[in-house]
Amino acid sequence: MPYRELADTLAEVLLKRGFERDRASLCARLFAETTRDGVYSHGVNRFPRFLRMIDNGKIDIHGRPKLVTKVGAVERWDGERGPGNLNAHACMGRALEIAQAEGIGCVALANTNHWMRGGSYGWQAAEAGAIGICWTNTLPNLPPWGGATPRLGNNPLVIAVPRSNGHVVLDMAMSQFSYGALASYRLSGKPLPVDGGFDSQGNLTRDPEAIEISQRPLPIGYWKGSGLALVLDMAAAMLSGGAATHQIPLDPERETGVSQVFLAFHLRAFGNADAIADGIIASLRGPAEDARYPGEQVIRIRTENLALGVPVDPAVWREVAGL
Amino acid sequence: MPYRELADTLAEVLLKRGFERDRASLCARLFAETTRDGVYSHGVNRFPRFLRMIDNGKIDIHGRPKLVTKVGAVERWDGERGPGNLNAHACMGRALEIAQAEGIGCVALANTNHWMRGGSYGWQAAEAGAIGICWTNTLPNLPPWGGATPRLGNNPLVIAVPRSNGHVVLDMAMSQFSYGALASYRLSGKPLPVDGGFDSQGNLTRDPEAIEISQRPLPIGYWKGSGLALVLDMAAAMLSGGAATHQIPLDPERETGVSQVFLAFHLRAFGNADAIADGIIASLRGPAEDARYPGEQVIRIRTENLALGVPVDPAVWREVAGL
Repeated sequence: MPYRELADTLAEVLLKRGFERDRASLCARLFAETTRDGVYSHGVNRFPRFLRMIDNGKIDIHGRPKLVTKVGAVERWDGERGPGNLNAHACMGRALEIAQAEGIGCVALANTNHWMRGGSYGWQAAEAGAIGICWTNTLPNLPPWGGATPRLGNNPLVIAVPRSNGHVVLDMAMSQFSYGALASYRLSGKPLPVDGGFDSQGNLTRDPEAIEISQRPLPIGYWKGSGLALVLDMAAAMLSGGAATHQIPLDPERETGVSQVFLAFHLRAFGNADAIADGIIASLRGPAEDARYPGEQVIRIRTENLALGVPVDPAVWREVAGL
Repeated sequence: MPYRELADTLAEVLLKRGFERDRASLCARLFAETTRDGVYSHGVNRFPRFLRMIDNGKIDIHGRPKLVTKVGAVERWDGERGPGNLNAHACMGRALEIAQAEGIGCVALANTNHWMRGGSYGWQAAEAGAIGICWTNTLPNLPPWGGATPRLGNNPLVIAVPRSNGHVVLDMAMSQFSYGALASYRLSGKPLPVDGGFDSQGNLTRDPEAIEISQRPLPIGYWKGSGLALVLDMAAAMLSGGAATHQIPLDPERETGVSQVFLAFHLRAFGNADAIADGIIASLRGPAEDARYPGEQVIRIRTENLALGVPVDPAVWREVAGL
């Protein structure tokens, strides 16, 4: 499907739901760009659930971030349970504004909703010429190292670095494989390339289905990712004053009131940053080695999808068209 | 050995080398505290190498950070190849000062030396009541995912969260096991608890010696830690204007001119942070599960070592005493 048609159709659905025109258009664009960039799990495929969460009252389409406190270059905002992607986009935008004046800007956002693809706000910062760092907490869906019960959030961390020859955007959750990735491997009948979690007997396994059943995906780096998920939750809740993972409802269709942090660093005063970035990327690759940088594949898929059309699951599309 | 004796002896050695009194005392304290806290690889055990790097001219004992540029709450400093732990301590201190006024402070430091234990500056921030985030780049010692040649730095990332009932301090390098940890497992004749790298045939292995031989430790989370190491190097070099990993000499005794970033977030305006932190730590542990938070074990070891004496390797101590 042409990218334009995808974005326009989603915007129409949102307009019918009562979104104001500019918010419908931005919200639809963020969903459509995510699918365009190949992050299928968090784009159009999530759109029906997004609408159901408007219907069940968890997302308030008129909610928008409100400033709560300001201390220098740090601001606390309340997301008023508005659409998560609109709130996150506004708050990274605000962090970028602060950084224009202060070199760095920090916006801590409480009481918001799932931001869909976290990478969107990394790309937003990089496109503005800034280093962007952001993270969110989530409902409890990851057992800490040493435990079997999900007590941590699979909190995504995004670090984006601008580069004229291709932004570098790391967008990683704390589990080695998302549930979406586990399902893809299961459907394709393939084992995971590396251990992805524990089976119900507590053994490490590459069997995706065993992990879906045990609900024990593995944090990246075992104890290290477990610790990282914990401190990201702490920093998000403490800076924003919002909910921590243990306070967020367990049902994904009722997951609301999450906490997020957006950091932007302006590089304008630092003229040689682009050359430094190019040098690092050039040094990453040796002869006959295929190391890639984060974001490199996104650009490849984006280009292909813009040229050939964005792949949209027909069943999902029938659902969207009927909404 | 009593902690006090350890710190005093190290300070005397530094005084004999020409350190000014207050700098000898702080530098010695940072080494001694690292061993006291159980991070044996980066404490007294590193002290002889530290002195050799003064002798070979890589560390200038009189070098101290100099302000280069200031943009709002972001400052660029030049470390003048001074002692890495003194430079890092000064720069986290400066980030904390900026954060007092601006809510957040960022110091990017170029041209410095190995900071020894990164966690030291996390504890420093937490003890000042701030969230501290810092990272450093290193010489190239980690192959990126998809490659076999070390082109990335094993860049440690530190995230510290203050809590009256025990600070939470994550101090993690990008490899699953440090070379120090690999050596300990080899000496004890034990396999690693999880895959730690590739053997020379390119197979994942738990054999510590095979990884020491191949020089291919595994990044945490495979492709994820590889991407994280890359963006940390980029951000450190671009913000500080200093060297990137590919520009840092490969010999550990000639590793100099590294780049670091220090971030501090003041929580003083956010009165409920401590209660939020306690709630999260309480929620981490279920009945009969032994999940720990980062830093918890440090406090246990610190208490024990202060009570019973700090364990110091006799061979290392003979070397230090003779210096």
